[in-house]
Amino acid sequence: MIKVSIQYPNKAGARFDADYYVNKHMPMALKLLGDAVKSASVEIGISGALPDQAPPFVAMCSFVCETVQDFYDAFLPHASLLQGDIAVYTDIEPVIQMSEIKLSS
Amino acid sequence: MIKVSIQYPNKAGARFDADYYVNKHMPMALKLLGDAVKSASVEIGISGALPDQAPPFVAMCSFVCETVQDFYDAFLPHASLLQGDIAVYTDIEPVIQMSEIKLSS
Repeated sequence: MIKVSIQYPNKAGARFDADYYVNKHMPMALKLLGDAVKSASVEIGISGALPDQAPPFVAMCSFVCETVQDFYDAFLPHASLLQGDIAVYTDIEPVIQMSEIKLSS
Repeated sequence: MIKVSIQYPNKAGARFDADYYVNKHMPMALKLLGDAVKSASVEIGISGALPDQAPPFVAMCSFVCETVQDFYDAFLPHASLLQGDIAVYTDIEPVIQMSEIKLSS
Protein backbone atom coordinates (compact mmCIF):
# COMPACT_ATOMS: atom_id res chain seq x y z
CA MET A 1 0.00 0.00 0.00
CA ILE A 2 1.12 3.55 -0.66
CA LYS A 3 0.29 6.90 0.85
CA VAL A 4 -0.08 10.16 -1.05
CA SER A 5 0.72 13.08 1.30
CA ILE A 6 -0.27 16.63 0.40
CA GLN A 7 1.02 19.20 2.88
CA TYR A 8 0.70 22.98 2.97
CA PRO A 9 3.75 24.74 4.50
CA ASN A 10 2.90 27.29 7.18
CA LYS A 11 4.06 30.58 5.71
CA ALA A 12 3.74 34.00 7.31
CA GLY A 13 1.08 36.06 5.55
CA ALA A 14 -0.22 33.15 3.49
CA ARG A 15 -3.92 32.55 3.03
CA PHE A 16 -5.57 29.26 4.02
CA ASP A 17 -9.33 28.76 4.41
CA ALA A 18 -9.41 25.69 6.66
CA ASP A 19 -13.22 25.56 6.69
CA TYR A 20 -13.42 25.40 2.90
CA TYR A 21 -10.55 22.91 2.73
CA VAL A 22 -12.04 20.51 5.30
CA ASN A 23 -15.73 20.85 4.43
CA LYS A 24 -15.74 21.47 0.68
CA HIS A 25 -12.47 20.67 -1.10
CA MET A 26 -11.55 17.41 0.61
CA PRO A 27 -15.04 15.85 0.48
CA MET A 28 -15.11 16.71 -3.25
CA ALA A 29 -11.67 15.16 -3.72
CA LEU A 30 -12.66 11.97 -1.89
CA LYS A 31 -15.84 11.67 -3.94
CA LEU A 32 -13.99 12.15 -7.23
CA LEU A 33 -11.14 9.78 -6.36
CA GLY A 34 -13.66 7.09 -5.46
CA ASP A 35 -12.71 3.51 -4.67
CA ALA A 36 -9.01 4.03 -5.46
CA VAL A 37 -8.69 5.64 -2.04
CA LYS A 38 -8.83 2.97 0.65
CA SER A 39 -8.54 5.42 3.53
CA ALA A 40 -7.84 9.09 3.99
CA SER A 41 -7.07 11.65 6.68
CA VAL A 42 -7.31 15.42 6.77
CA GLU A 43 -5.57 17.46 9.47
CA ILE A 44 -5.16 21.07 10.52
CA GLY A 45 -1.90 22.07 12.22
CA ILE A 46 -1.92 22.83 15.94
CA SER A 47 1.75 23.30 16.86
CA GLY A 48 5.25 22.05 16.38
CA ALA A 49 6.72 19.49 18.78
CA LEU A 50 6.11 21.90 21.66
CA PRO A 51 2.95 23.92 22.30
CA ASP A 52 4.67 27.28 21.78
CA GLN A 53 6.06 26.32 18.35
CA ALA A 54 4.17 27.06 15.13
CA PRO A 55 3.15 24.00 13.11
CA PRO A 56 5.45 23.44 10.11
CA PHE A 57 2.34 22.78 8.00
CA VAL A 58 -0.96 24.66 8.26
CA ALA A 59 -2.81 21.64 6.86
CA MET A 60 -2.13 18.19 5.49
CA CYS A 61 -4.00 15.31 3.97
CA SER A 62 -3.19 11.77 2.97
CA PHE A 63 -4.73 9.18 0.69
CA VAL A 64 -3.94 5.46 1.04
CA CYS A 65 -4.12 3.52 -2.24
CA GLU A 66 -3.00 0.07 -3.37
CA THR A 67 -0.44 1.50 -5.81
CA VAL A 68 0.83 4.87 -7.02
CA GLN A 69 -0.60 4.02 -10.43
CA ASP A 70 -4.04 3.52 -8.87
CA PHE A 71 -3.84 7.06 -7.51
CA TYR A 72 -2.72 8.52 -10.84
CA ASP A 73 -5.51 6.68 -12.66
CA ALA A 74 -8.10 8.06 -10.25
CA PHE A 75 -6.65 11.57 -10.03
CA LEU A 76 -5.72 12.46 -13.60
CA PRO A 77 -9.29 12.58 -15.01
CA HIS A 78 -10.11 15.17 -12.30
CA ALA A 79 -6.74 16.94 -12.11
CA SER A 80 -7.93 20.22 -13.63
CA LEU A 81 -10.95 20.45 -11.35
CA LEU A 82 -9.09 19.52 -8.16
CA GLN A 83 -5.95 21.56 -8.81
CA GLY A 84 -8.04 24.50 -10.02
CA ASP A 85 -9.95 24.46 -6.73
CA ILE A 86 -6.77 24.97 -4.67
CA ALA A 87 -6.71 28.71 -5.39
CA VAL A 88 -10.14 29.01 -3.74
CA TYR A 89 -8.74 28.13 -0.30
CA THR A 90 -5.03 28.93 -0.39
CA ASP A 91 -2.11 30.62 -2.11
CA ILE A 92 0.33 28.08 -0.62
CA GLU A 93 1.94 25.58 -2.98
CA PRO A 94 1.52 22.12 -1.45
CA VAL A 95 4.38 19.68 -0.84
CA ILE A 96 3.39 16.38 -2.42
CA GLN A 97 4.90 12.99 -1.71
CA MET A 98 4.33 9.33 -2.59
CA SER A 99 5.45 6.89 0.11
CA GLU A 100 5.39 3.18 0.71
CA ILE A 101 3.57 2.18 3.89
CA LYS A 102 5.84 -0.06 5.92
CA LEU A 103 3.90 -0.32 9.17
CA SER A 104 0.25 0.46 9.80
CA SER A 105 -1.79 -0.15 12.93
CA MET B 1 -8.27 13.07 17.89
CA ILE B 2 -4.82 14.42 17.10
CA LYS B 3 -1.97 13.25 14.92
CA VAL B 4 1.71 13.55 15.73
CA SER B 5 3.71 13.66 12.49
CA ILE B 6 7.47 13.06 12.50
CA GLN B 7 9.04 13.59 9.08
CA TYR B 8 12.66 13.34 7.92
CA PRO B 9 13.53 15.81 5.12
CA ASN B 10 15.29 14.24 2.16
CA LYS B 11 18.72 15.88 2.16
CA ALA B 12 21.55 15.14 -0.24
CA GLY B 13 24.32 13.20 1.45
CA ALA B 14 22.30 12.54 4.59
CA ARG B 15 22.26 9.14 6.25
CA PHE B 16 19.05 7.20 6.85
CA ASP B 17 18.89 3.50 7.73
CA ALA B 18 15.34 2.65 6.65
CA ASP B 19 15.65 -0.98 7.74
CA TYR B 20 16.60 -0.01 11.31
CA TYR B 21 13.94 2.71 11.40
CA VAL B 22 11.11 0.45 10.23
CA ASN B 23 12.11 -2.78 11.96
CA LYS B 24 13.78 -1.61 15.19
CA HIS B 25 13.14 2.02 16.11
CA MET B 26 9.44 2.29 15.29
CA PRO B 27 8.40 -1.03 16.89
CA MET B 28 10.28 0.07 20.03
CA ALA B 29 8.55 3.46 19.95
CA LEU B 30 5.12 1.88 19.55
CA LYS B 31 5.77 -0.54 22.41
CA LEU B 32 6.95 2.26 24.74
CA LEU B 33 4.12 4.65 23.86
CA GLY B 34 1.58 1.92 24.58
CA ASP B 35 -2.14 2.50 24.70
CA ALA B 36 -1.85 6.27 24.20
CA VAL B 37 -1.32 5.56 20.49
CA LYS B 38 -4.63 4.55 18.93
CA SER B 39 -3.15 3.98 15.46
CA ALA B 40 0.15 4.59 13.72
CA SER B 41 1.72 4.56 10.29
CA VAL B 42 5.31 4.38 9.10
CA GLU B 43 6.27 5.26 5.52
CA ILE B 44 9.36 5.40 3.35
CA GLY B 45 9.44 8.01 0.57
CA ILE B 46 9.11 6.85 -3.05
CA SER B 47 8.87 10.07 -5.08
CA GLY B 48 7.42 13.53 -5.26
CA ALA B 49 4.12 14.13 -7.06
CA LEU B 50 5.66 12.74 -10.26
CA PRO B 51 7.77 9.57 -10.54
CA ASP B 52 10.91 11.46 -11.60
CA GLN B 53 10.82 13.80 -8.60
CA ALA B 54 12.67 13.01 -5.37
CA PRO B 55 10.44 12.57 -2.29
CA PRO B 56 10.50 15.67 -0.06
CA PHE B 57 10.84 13.35 2.96
CA VAL B 58 12.93 10.18 3.09
CA ALA B 59 10.66 8.79 5.82
CA MET B 60 7.71 9.78 7.93
CA CYS B 61 5.61 8.38 10.73
CA SER B 62 2.45 9.39 12.50
CA PHE B 63 0.80 8.56 15.80
CA VAL B 64 -2.91 9.12 16.39
CA CYS B 65 -3.82 9.91 20.02
CA GLU B 66 -6.88 11.26 21.79
CA THR B 67 -5.14 14.47 22.84
CA VAL B 68 -1.73 16.14 22.52
CA GLN B 69 -1.41 15.80 26.30
CA ASP B 70 -1.93 12.03 26.03
CA PHE B 71 1.01 11.90 23.63
CA TYR B 72 3.24 14.02 25.88
CA ASP B 73 2.33 11.88 28.92
CA ALA B 74 3.26 8.70 27.03
CA PHE B 75 6.36 10.09 25.34
CA LEU B 76 8.12 12.11 28.05
CA PRO B 77 9.05 9.16 30.31
CA HIS B 78 10.82 7.58 27.29
CA ALA B 79 12.07 10.77 25.59
CA SER B 80 15.77 10.19 26.32
CA LEU B 81 15.68 6.61 25.04
CA LEU B 82 13.67 7.38 21.90
CA GLN B 83 15.43 10.61 20.97
CA GLY B 84 18.81 9.09 21.74
CA ASP B 85 18.06 6.24 19.33
CA ILE B 86 17.58 8.64 16.39
CA ALA B 87 21.35 9.00 15.88
CA VAL B 88 21.54 5.23 15.26
CA TYR B 89 19.56 5.50 12.03
CA THR B 90 19.93 9.06 10.79
CA ASP B 91 21.69 12.41 11.00
CA ILE B 92 18.59 14.22 9.73
CA GLU B 93 16.69 16.41 12.18
CA PRO B 94 13.00 15.46 11.97
CA VAL B 95 10.19 17.95 11.36
CA ILE B 96 7.61 17.39 14.09
CA GLN B 97 4.02 18.55 14.07
CA MET B 98 0.85 18.19 16.14
CA SER B 99 -2.37 18.38 14.11
CA GLU B 100 -6.07 18.06 14.74
CA ILE B 101 -7.70 15.32 12.68
CA LYS B 102 -10.68 16.81 10.89
CA LEU B 103 -11.64 13.96 8.56
CA SER B 104 -10.66 10.30 8.80
CA SER B 105 -11.90 7.39 6.73
